[in-house]
Amino acid sequence: MKKAAIAAIAALGLTVALDAAAQAKPEDLVKQRKAAFTLTAKYFGPIGAMVQGKAPYDAAIVTRNAGFLETLSKMPWDGFQASTADVKETRAKPEIYKEGDKFKASADKMQAEIVKLAAAAKSGDQNAVKAAFGAVGQSCKACHDAYRRD
Amino acid sequence: MKKAAIAAIAALGLTVALDAAAQAKPEDLVKQRKAAFTLTAKYFGPIGAMVQGKAPYDAAIVTRNAGFLETLSKMPWDGFQASTADVKETRAKPEIYKEGDKFKASADKMQAEIVKLAAAAKSGDQNAVKAAFGAVGQSCKACHDAYRRD
Repeated sequence: MKKAAIAAIAALGLTVALDAAAQAKPEDLVKQRKAAFTLTAKYFGPIGAMVQGKAPYDAAIVTRNAGFLETLSKMPWDGFQASTADVKETRAKPEIYKEGDKFKASADKMQAEIVKLAAAAKSGDQNAVKAAFGAVGQSCKACHDAYRRD
Repeated sequence: MKKAAIAAIAALGLTVALDAAAQAKPEDLVKQRKAAFTLTAKYFGPIGAMVQGKAPYDAAIVTRNAGFLETLSKMPWDGFQASTADVKETRAKPEIYKEGDKFKASADKMQAEIVKLAAAAKSGDQNAVKAAFGAVGQSCKACHDAYRRD
């Protein structure tokens, strides 16, 4: 009964969030989703520099950034509403709104890989962080290749 | 000994983060800190609509958003480097770089109020959420009044 109630609240929550997003101006939705990616790059980049040996490995920063990324990875997706298809200041391809399931699968993959990166960061195993970083990067690239204009 | 080690790592982490930020292009720092505020508005606004009775209260959304805000509230500050004082696309006043301690106190106040909002959200007490929301809003306004151009 408790689980059902939680599921119901979660389902309701999602609906409310999507409704709220649907009412937002398309330009604002684009601005917000871009903001999430800007911050994703801010915190992903330094991990890359460290695992590639371009900066000294700092476990505290890696763990902090990976935790930030875990939260940030939940933020862009409700900004990809069909209402934004005509906004000019975006590199998002219109295919996103025709292939909703495939796009969502790409987004889910990225989030799942970031969860693994955060777990690897907490473990303190640099090789695990390196492997997880690569998998996150591949998930970014796959989605960009499919759904982002050059 | 363990606490000292953790403190040393934390201190080192901060230095590395600030160094990394210092090397970033001023325009990128401005873009990144703006992104943090854009997302802060995205997740703060709906809580306001709910506590003001303009939208139905949804405890799951309030708790989620407050948690997001807690993380986001840590993100803008290392973008306020003196190197950004000459960037045009910002409403940040130059006083920020002359009154570092006062600006930091404002930023700390906002973060502390958001921690209280997140705690209130988790408690499920709508009156506590309403009070905490107001305090966060006041901390936003105080800093904007002092350090943001109209």
